[in-house]
Amino acid sequence: MDDDDVRRGQPTVHKAYDEWTAILAGDALLTLAFEILARDETHPDALVRAELVTGVARAAGGRGMVKGQMLDLAAEKRGEPSSPTVAHIGELQGLKTGALIACACEAGAILAQAAPGERAALREFGWQLGLAFQIADDLLDAEGDETTVGKATGKDSTAGKATLIGLLGLPMARTLLTETEQKAIAALAPFGTKAAILVEAARFAASRAH
Amino acid sequence: MDDDDVRRGQPTVHKAYDEWTAILAGDALLTLAFEILARDETHPDALVRAELVTGVARAAGGRGMVKGQMLDLAAEKRGEPSSPTVAHIGELQGLKTGALIACACEAGAILAQAAPGERAALREFGWQLGLAFQIADDLLDAEGDETTVGKATGKDSTAGKATLIGLLGLPMARTLLTETEQKAIAALAPFGTKAAILVEAARFAASRAH
Repeated sequence: MDDDDVRRGQPTVHKAYDEWTAILAGDALLTLAFEILARDETHPDALVRAELVTGVARAAGGRGMVKGQMLDLAAEKRGEPSSPTVAHIGELQGLKTGALIACACEAGAILAQAAPGERAALREFGWQLGLAFQIADDLLDAEGDETTVGKATGKDSTAGKATLIGLLGLPMARTLLTETEQKAIAALAPFGTKAAILVEAARFAASRAH
Repeated sequence: MDDDDVRRGQPTVHKAYDEWTAILAGDALLTLAFEILARDETHPDALVRAELVTGVARAAGGRGMVKGQMLDLAAEKRGEPSSPTVAHIGELQGLKTGALIACACEAGAILAQAAPGERAALREFGWQLGLAFQIADDLLDAEGDETTVGKATGKDSTAGKATLIGLLGLPMARTLLTETEQKAIAALAPFGTKAAILVEAARFAASRAH
């Protein structure tokens, strides 16, 4: 949808094949996600499976990721003359990335039939992880090298796209990234050393751009 | 995907808005279907909800409707020099239309927690209904008027697309439509007069082109 020719160093589907194939591959994979969540092998308790489907559908659909993508494209199309606020960009990025990552983390708690407090903690962790990922992505776009990043860089400023970096400047964006990483790690406190791998994930997401 | 400008007398989404919006609307609606199937209000038994999700996902996804659409586009792109058989077209149309209509009919049986035999009967009804719908659609494309049909007609022959009509000719295609309508109605025999509305549906699907 952003018309990139390259992802992770590989040609994108619409480049390697054509646009129809890319659209159908997207539909097939989106549908496959729900098939996998709902089938017996995923969890013996059907209520767990139904909750997973509902959670992913809410995070990915018209009030989640799709909405974020639509708002983003609409802003790009209008040329967005009015200055968006940090809160506005945060909401948009939350919809585009945060909601789905938060859902993925909460899904672990749903599968383990964890207590509501643990479920909320993992959700909060995922939300902050998503924000950190997105800020790091913007920093890489502003500063990174195409070969290392695996996709075209400098696109946001070329497109005149409103990002946190454009609004805050690089040093404040980097501070925000560190704060977000710390919030993600703090959310994991109730799990102690059991959450070590998730702490690593938060550090990795942020360190991509450090 | 077939680049039509009109559906049911209305401009298509990619015409009224743009292609991005059409893709995102498709993703949002596909996702919404699974959200609705999985949420509590749909059925008190979570196993029923999970079965509905699995059924729709299998019918719509990469081994169902998406596969049918992909095969159809691939054949169109190649110009399909080799003559496809009636069986081949039947399989393609079964994937594109039949699988999802069969699934919709079976879903009624799943929701009602009906016996396996009743579930199979409704599935068979849906499969034949889907075939009838597709044959009628081809007949309308070959013979219909754009204003009555609500979309562009004569597209298949213009595109040199292999259809049952091209292979069988109009009279045999009409005979096949009547036979398929009868098979659909026969599948409903176990339900007696309770299935009157479904008998009407089969008659309606076929009568569009009578």
